[in-house]
Parts: sequence; structure tokens; C-alpha cells
Amino acid sequence: MSDDALLARLRDDLGREAVLTDTDVTGSYSRDMMPLAPSGTPLAVVLPRDVAGVQATVRACAEAKVPIVPRGAGSGLSGAANAIDGCVVLVLTKLNEIVEVDAGNRLAVVQPGVVNLDFRNAVEKHGLFYPPDPSSYDWCTIGGNLSTNAGGLCCVKYGVTTDSVLGLEVVLADGSLLHTGRRTVKGVAGYDLARLFVGSEGTLGIITRATVALKPLPQAPATLVAGFTSTAAAGEAVARVVREGLVPSLMEIMDAASIKAAEAYLKTDIGAGSDCQALLLCQSDAGGEVARREMAALEQICNDCGADMAYATDDLAEGNMLLQARRVVLTALELYGSWLTDDVCVPRTRISELIAGCQRISEEVGLRIAVVGHAGDGNMHPTIVYDPTSADEFARAQRAFDAILEVGLSLGGTVTGEHGVGKIKREWLEREIGPVGLRVHQQIKAALDPENLFNPGSMFAMP
Amino acid sequence: MSDDALLARLRDDLGREAVLTDTDVTGSYSRDMMPLAPSGTPLAVVLPRDVAGVQATVRACAEAKVPIVPRGAGSGLSGAANAIDGCVVLVLTKLNEIVEVDAGNRLAVVQPGVVNLDFRNAVEKHGLFYPPDPSSYDWCTIGGNLSTNAGGLCCVKYGVTTDSVLGLEVVLADGSLLHTGRRTVKGVAGYDLARLFVGSEGTLGIITRATVALKPLPQAPATLVAGFTSTAAAGEAVARVVREGLVPSLMEIMDAASIKAAEAYLKTDIGAGSDCQALLLCQSDAGGEVARREMAALEQICNDCGADMAYATDDLAEGNMLLQARRVVLTALELYGSWLTDDVCVPRTRISELIAGCQRISEEVGLRIAVVGHAGDGNMHPTIVYDPTSADEFARAQRAFDAILEVGLSLGGTVTGEHGVGKIKREWLEREIGPVGLRVHQQIKAALDPENLFNPGSMFAMP
Repeated sequence: MSDDALLARLRDDLGREAVLTDTDVTGSYSRDMMPLAPSGTPLAVVLPRDVAGVQATVRACAEAKVPIVPRGAGSGLSGAANAIDGCVVLVLTKLNEIVEVDAGNRLAVVQPGVVNLDFRNAVEKHGLFYPPDPSSYDWCTIGGNLSTNAGGLCCVKYGVTTDSVLGLEVVLADGSLLHTGRRTVKGVAGYDLARLFVGSEGTLGIITRATVALKPLPQAPATLVAGFTSTAAAGEAVARVVREGLVPSLMEIMDAASIKAAEAYLKTDIGAGSDCQALLLCQSDAGGEVARREMAALEQICNDCGADMAYATDDLAEGNMLLQARRVVLTALELYGSWLTDDVCVPRTRISELIAGCQRISEEVGLRIAVVGHAGDGNMHPTIVYDPTSADEFARAQRAFDAILEVGLSLGGTVTGEHGVGKIKREWLEREIGPVGLRVHQQIKAALDPENLFNPGSMFAMP
Repeated sequence: MSDDALLARLRDDLGREAVLTDTDVTGSYSRDMMPLAPSGTPLAVVLPRDVAGVQATVRACAEAKVPIVPRGAGSGLSGAANAIDGCVVLVLTKLNEIVEVDAGNRLAVVQPGVVNLDFRNAVEKHGLFYPPDPSSYDWCTIGGNLSTNAGGLCCVKYGVTTDSVLGLEVVLADGSLLHTGRRTVKGVAGYDLARLFVGSEGTLGIITRATVALKPLPQAPATLVAGFTSTAAAGEAVARVVREGLVPSLMEIMDAASIKAAEAYLKTDIGAGSDCQALLLCQSDAGGEVARREMAALEQICNDCGADMAYATDDLAEGNMLLQARRVVLTALELYGSWLTDDVCVPRTRISELIAGCQRISEEVGLRIAVVGHAGDGNMHPTIVYDPTSADEFARAQRAFDAILEVGLSLGGTVTGEHGVGKIKREWLEREIGPVGLRVHQQIKAALDPENLFNPGSMFAMP
């Protein structure tokens, strides 16, 4: 089938308004938020309104042998949703219905185009809680969260997206519809296909519906902030929290460069003191006496590890204000230039070594690197600041990006804690999982997508 | 390669003592605990001492095209570990080392042959907790738990085995060694292969090592027992517990037949009263004031739902005594004959309908059916009692077994909550997952085990 014939068929099947080819428009659907990743020029951008439209698109592209790059809002940070030349970009944002909230069984059924925050708000009305909260929660979609197995601040207590998934509906390479998983909280009937598709970054099928488990709504959080004059002391505090069996609902870390940026942006002294090298932010959502006890234990550990400032509050507004410093870091870094955020996860005992490594790399490449991260699970986001008009600085930023992954792996970590592999970490994935792991990936991909049309070249290359 | 040549090679590679062919001995390795499942006569039983021995066995069998049925202790309830004629039974019990307990990162590395209870005890010495606790925890092995994705009483709060798995080492069909997953608590580098192998019942590879996440050791549990004159009232109490956002660490249900059996076996009145139709047993391991509050809320719900007996205690010994009634049910049923235990999981709002269905089936087939189950997650174990010397009663028991699955599916449930598919529920799996789901299973199996030598005919048949 020629490209023109494919476009005609898509317009027939989905309606003219669902098939975009104006390059001014399609350009805005051809990238996510990762500047390092290459992107191509799509043949068309398709926005189906329902699962039948997704199936029709997949079938038409299969016949024309045209690759499909699925995407949601485009908030990704790995280039997984970036177009490749001549592909169809399949945008899932119009499948945006919350199909069902079943409070009696604490579950919901949701389409991929629903924005994370809208979904959170909808289930909250039923007294329920959907934990996954990536930083882009106010605009990223559930479908993107599923495809990248997104995390967020909640993970230290509530896990990542896959931990909330009970079942999926998926359009397969031949256009057929797979229903996998279940509505019950337990079930071992067959392979765990749902969790195979979660995090597969659109390379195995198109997720068109998810059944997710919900939690009881937690209590309003109490918040603790603690400042340390060395990252080693902050790292030791994190390790002690883990070792002593505490499970805060949030535990974030900011290094000196992050603190400085946040203070400059907020035009305020966040109370860390001028020689502060690391800030820990912790919350407990257990409520009442338990939260107070948890906060007291966290504060004690911080003090024992040499914090020279520790402040706790159970006032929600004040807690939010304290957290604001953490939330604004990436925006604040734009004061200095463009940024490139990395994503490594290390064992929780190795966090301060990672931060030290980033400081060394910063000196080597001569660029500012600010480290913020989810200390509670070891998932760090060292963020490199560079001048986007300087090819040299961009090249040095890329070098720093790779050097950070190198340090992460050497500490027993993984090259991506929550952002995914996409088009920027293919070689790093191969290095982490080794030749046997890569072969198994290729075997599974070939089994489910024999023509290699689902997001080809993302995550890994076929042999 | 002839059978004799294969045996000679295995003896060469693993040592004579690792290869058993005496049928008196091999017979004891040819079945698990499910009387319904067919079993065959193995060519040999092989007990490697290390991963190299597992690889050698897999390579030799691949060359001889002889199927491999892996097994641990044989506590399974689906026939997944039952031998097929001419196979090699690969026993993993001698790979029984706890390789590492890393308290700082709350994880452990363990070989498949370690007994669940031994592993629990070992990590407890580090103040840590491995949640999965199948009823056979004092003799089942971690490898079997991984292969069946085993559950237990802990699941209502802590999830099933897969929820504790970080990474796996697996021997693949060509004898190569796959390392998948990670040591960090988060990570999205590549497909979630670890969770694909967990619960795959030995059909995709041989698990030789697992890295598992551990929890802080919970507090000593407080216990509540409540009696109801109708199962509908008990079911409503369970639904209310879920709806009100309570997460007890244990919530079990026993129907009238289970209560009667336990009382007869324990030679005591467990205080349920003669017209008691259902008993709920709940625990909270939150400790102190929280546990007291949780217990009070649970008691209130039970009373609101019409319990005519509710008793709570935070005395550990007394709590264990109350739980004993639940723990002895299967043994107690042996007073009346042999038993056949089913395993269905239904949405938590449908439990009393399942119990009512079992009572109807009991009358239809004229056999005693006792229902015990993990009410907190809807996973019920209706247990059929029959006379093993009567072919007619056995046939009726089989009929009841299937009829219960039928009811479970009709209530939106799954045909196996934790025991697995094995050799007894193949047709039921197909019915639950449908033709598309079955095809995906077959595609993945063919991709990873092209000669179909890993536990062939278990879970599903190849086309």
C-alpha cells in the first residue's frame, strides 16, 4: 500500500479530522521533553476516538508496513514517543474516559488518554487514592504512565505504576484485542502479561484500557525538612531510615546546587544555611499519633547523623511550602540555561557516592549539575545545565549524562529508575542487561510484533 | 541421543549420586499434592547442587529432546510439578543457600531450594520480614513459590510473591544464564522479565536465584474473631472493611462446614454458637494505638453487619489459638475423607455469593464442601470432601471442582488466585483468557522455549 493509499484508508476508517498531515501541526506531535533524543518526520499523526479506531490504525499500518509510534501528552524524558521518519504517530489523548470507579472493590477502569491529575481527582471523590505521581502529573496521561512504568514522589511507600495495575486491554500487532489480567486483587491464571506490557514503551502493543487497584485515601501529610553540611551525612540518614524500618510516604533529597537554584528562583532563604550541602524532605501520611511518632523518629535520625537544621510541621500549607523548594528545582535551573535531566537508581546505601560522583563530573565537564532525587528509593535525577546555543556545551552535557550513568551502574544501580530507555539509553540498556537479556527482549518483541512496526528502534534494536 | 546416553552424560556432568532412576525413588518425585492431576513416569530424577548443574541438565536434555519438569518440595496444588512420561524431573532442593541478606537495602538473595520458613527465620534475625506465607510455608520452597507466584494469609496487606521480587537468575532453554531485574527498589530498564518468569510454572526457564525486597518486621498482631448467623452478613462486613479503607494484615473467612470440622478436630467449641454460619478472623500488625484503633473499627463493622459474637485480643498466644481454627481446617476435614481444594478469587463484594454457590453445589453433588478463604482479597478455597475408595464420589468431587470454577468466573473472578493452572486447569485458563490471550501465551512460550521442553503440557497446550 502506498503512503497515499494508507492516508486515504485511515481517513475513511477514522474520519478526516482524525488524520493530520500538515507538517506545522504534526511537528508538535513529533517529540517529547528529552532534548538529547533524535526525532523524525512522521507521515501522519492519527488521533482515534475509540479502541476500534486504534485497531483500524494498527491494521492499516500493518498492511502498509508503516511503523507506529504511540504517544500520550508527550511529557516523556527518554524520546520513546519521538517520531521516526515516515511513521504514523498514534495519539491516545482522545481515549480519555474514566470508564468506572468501583469503590466496593477499590479499583477503577480508565482509558489511556486521561490526565493523571484528572484521574486522581476523580477517584478522590470516592475516598480513594491512585498513588503514581510523576512530576508531570498535572499534564501527563495514564497511558504514558503505563508505557513507561512511571514513578514519582509516592514510590517510597506505594511503588511504581505497575504496582497498581490489575489488568489491561491491548491492541496487538495484528489489530486483535488482548484482555489480560483481572478485576480481582489476586490472580495467577497464566503469564503476567499485564506487567510485561507495562513499561514496554509502546514496543509490544497499544494499551487502550487499564484496570487499576486503588488505595484508601491517606491522611494529610506531616512534613520534615533537615539540612546537612555534607552529602555523606544526608546519605547516612537515608540509609538509617531504611535500616530502622521506617517507611515515610515521601523522602526527597536536594544537593547544594539544587538548593541554591531553588533559593534564587523563590527569592528566599529556605533556611538551609550557607554551608548546607544537602536537604532531606520527608513526609508521613499515616495521620495522628503514628505520623507524629514517625516524624519524631525521622528527626532523631537526622540529628544523630549530624543535621544542623531539622524542622517538622503537621500544618499542610506549611508542609506544601517546604516541598515547594523541591518541586521548583527544574524550573529554577532554567535561570542558568537549558537542562538535561538524568535518571539513575542506586541502592539506597550508595546515594551520597552518586552525588559525589556527579560533583566530580560537574568539575570535569565544567557545567553545573544539580542533583535532586527520590532518596527513599535511591532514584536520583542529576540535572545538567548547559547553554543551548553552544554546541560545545551541549556536547559536554551529553558527556556528563553518560558519565553519570557510568557511575550509577558502578554503584550497583540501574540506568533508568523511572523515565525509561526510549531513544537515548539503548546502548546503556544493552550494557545493563547483557547479551542474554537483550536476546530475550528481541525474542519477545519478534514473537508479538513480527514485522517490528510498534515503536521500532526504541528501547533496543532488532538483530 | 538415546535415553541411556542422556543418563550417562548427566551422570558424567553432575555425578552419579545426582541422577536417580530407581522407580521406587523416582516415584516419590513424580507428583505434587493435587489428587486430580495426572502424572507420568520420569526417565530420571536429577538433583543438581549448583547452577552449573542446572545448566548442564538443561543442555543435555535439549540435545536429547527430553522434556524437563522442574520442582521444589512438591507442595503444589495444581499438578504443575507432576512428571510426564519419559521426562527428567529437575529437583531444585539442593540449591538451598541464602546467598545474602542486605539489611541496609532491605533485600536478600536466595536460591530456589530454600524452605520458605527457613528464609523467613533467617531474615527475621536482621529485623526484616519476607511476607509471602503460603499455608505450606514450613515445607514449601522459595523456588516453588516463585514459579506459582504463591500467596498466603499475608496477601491482603503485603501482596503475593511477585510483589517481593526485584530480580531473578534464570537458566534458559539453551542453557544460557539470564540475569534480569535489579538490586534497586525501582528500575524500568527493559521489559519486566522477572515478573514474566514469576508464576510461569516452569514453562519458560529454570529459576536458580532470586533477589527479593524485604519489609520492616511488623508488630505482634492483635486478633479479632467475629461470628455471623448468615454468610451474607459476613460478606457484607468484608465489603464494608474494603469500602471504609481498612487494611488489616489478615482477614480470613470460614463457613459453617469449616467451623464444624475445626471444632470436631480440636474437640472444642470455638465459641461460634450452634447457628453460626460464618466466622471472620482479622489481624492488625500495626502495633500499639493504631492496631487498637483498627481492631475497634473492624469490630464496629462486624457488629453493624449483625455479628452475634465479636472478640478482640492483643495477646499473641490467644490470637494464635483463635487462628488455629482456621489453620487446622484442611487437616480437620480428613476426619470425613480425602479432600480436594479449589482456588478461586472473586471481587471482594461477591464472597457470600460464592459461598452460597458452593452450598448449592454441595447439595447437587451430595458431598461436603467446606469454604475457607482469604476474605481480604477474595481468594476462596472451597474444599470438597470425598471417599477416595469410591470412584463415584471422586467423579462427583471433580464435577463439584469444575462447578465451583464456573461460579467463580460468573462472579467476575479468576479460576486461580494463588495455586496456579498446572495440569488441572488448562481448559479453564483457556476459557478465562480467551483465544487471543492463549495465542500470546503460546507465542511467548515458543519464543523462549522453541522445542517446548520446559514443563510441556502444563498451563496450556502448544498449537
